[in-house]
Amino acid sequence: MLNVIWADSSGVSATDRGLSYGDGLFETIRMEGCGAVLLSRHLQRMVTDAAVLGIAVTEPALRDAVRDAVGAHAEAFGSGGWVLKLVLTRGSGGRGYRPADESVPSLIVSASAMPPLPAPQGVAAGLSGFPLTVNPRLAGIKTLNRLEQVMASRELTDELYEVVMCDSEGQLVEGTRTNVLMKARDHWITPPREQLAVAGIMRGYVMDCLESQGEKVEYSTISPSMLKRSDCQGLYLMNSVIGIVPVRRFDGLDLPVNDALATIFNPLDLVES
Amino acid sequence: MLNVIWADSSGVSATDRGLSYGDGLFETIRMEGCGAVLLSRHLQRMVTDAAVLGIAVTEPALRDAVRDAVGAHAEAFGSGGWVLKLVLTRGSGGRGYRPADESVPSLIVSASAMPPLPAPQGVAAGLSGFPLTVNPRLAGIKTLNRLEQVMASRELTDELYEVVMCDSEGQLVEGTRTNVLMKARDHWITPPREQLAVAGIMRGYVMDCLESQGEKVEYSTISPSMLKRSDCQGLYLMNSVIGIVPVRRFDGLDLPVNDALATIFNPLDLVES
Repeated sequence: MLNVIWADSSGVSATDRGLSYGDGLFETIRMEGCGAVLLSRHLQRMVTDAAVLGIAVTEPALRDAVRDAVGAHAEAFGSGGWVLKLVLTRGSGGRGYRPADESVPSLIVSASAMPPLPAPQGVAAGLSGFPLTVNPRLAGIKTLNRLEQVMASRELTDELYEVVMCDSEGQLVEGTRTNVLMKARDHWITPPREQLAVAGIMRGYVMDCLESQGEKVEYSTISPSMLKRSDCQGLYLMNSVIGIVPVRRFDGLDLPVNDALATIFNPLDLVES
Repeated sequence: MLNVIWADSSGVSATDRGLSYGDGLFETIRMEGCGAVLLSRHLQRMVTDAAVLGIAVTEPALRDAVRDAVGAHAEAFGSGGWVLKLVLTRGSGGRGYRPADESVPSLIVSASAMPPLPAPQGVAAGLSGFPLTVNPRLAGIKTLNRLEQVMASRELTDELYEVVMCDSEGQLVEGTRTNVLMKARDHWITPPREQLAVAGIMRGYVMDCLESQGEKVEYSTISPSMLKRSDCQGLYLMNSVIGIVPVRRFDGLDLPVNDALATIFNPLDLVES
């Protein structure tokens, strides 16, 4: 059972636990016409992480909703890109924080235009003053508890495409809406899933690509001082909508822009229908 | 400007940032007939913490909503107790996590019956296996990001009234919906605000009472081993609805039940209209 709510035509119950406690998950999927980029990864992540939270949902039920959303929205966006958002909550019920033994999850489906994409030659990013904390039991899971990202994103400006949040030791962990990846001389560095607030679908895809190409990937946080060293060959931001974009300037420091990843992500190659 | 939503008559926009990101706050207020217990503390906290998040709301606007809620609901609950919940969100708008420069906050108002109150002679509580993480910039703030409390409360049973969550060092910090207070031989111990997920209104009231009575209060986390020592004279749970209740059994250990606080909270003494 799944209570599918179409965001453009109806509201959500004021008692929905997604609103009350952030008791749920979301996926933001890049669409190309009628196709969804990396759809299987998105849906598998939602099903897997829902199980961690104890929310019962199946991949076929999610696929049905995506299919219906394509039917309802794709034509309006023409052949170009758009964004499909799925919000899955535990629904209503329970006593306070304690969930009911059984509840009907809500799936809130919404479509929106593609945001402006960053220039492929790179963006400016900064260091967030808002620290990131990650619960070890929720690490990597794209839950609806995103107030830290909201607070950090208040530091964004028209010039600053992203800010990267640090852990309590001042190590770079992730951007407000992107994962980070650094190119060193003979390997790549990206923070490990267990230290991430959100382990992005694009991060997973890019890491799989690099590893399948025989590249060496080190999973660790990134010290800001590493970006100043001569063996830093570039810093990248990744998410499901923008793909992967180099950072040309970070916190006032000019960075080398390396085109090693320029062709790794082509959304048209990765659409599923 | 405040968009007041009555939970019993209308839904919330699917684009509300409270749902999308937990971008907001809430208060749970114990009502007695037409009066609200510790109302000024609740409303001041909401206004103060909204300012931290950058959500503009005034205390008079909240008071108006409480007054209207009393008009709408108090009669149905008779002269007895009921619970008023206020959920304040940043409303809709913005681009992804990044809020709009200006937005109209939502205030979602709901009324519910009093939950069963715990027996005054004490309750059983356990140790949660779900760790608590607190962002230093959000410590103590009753935000809508409460998934950790939801997950811990899945460990509750009919026999277990509460579970107490620990920090990464295994120190007791707070219950899923209560703050904790320990009585030692010549002083009281409660975790400091900067280590709390939620600094409860009842905790603030009880601490003010103790300090005004000349009692010594130490603000620190509580080691589970302290509860086994002979100078532990009792452990208490506190929140705005239940007041204060002793823990007679914690994680399989019988605790002394001390009536030193039995008269500190009488809701009828603290109603404001």
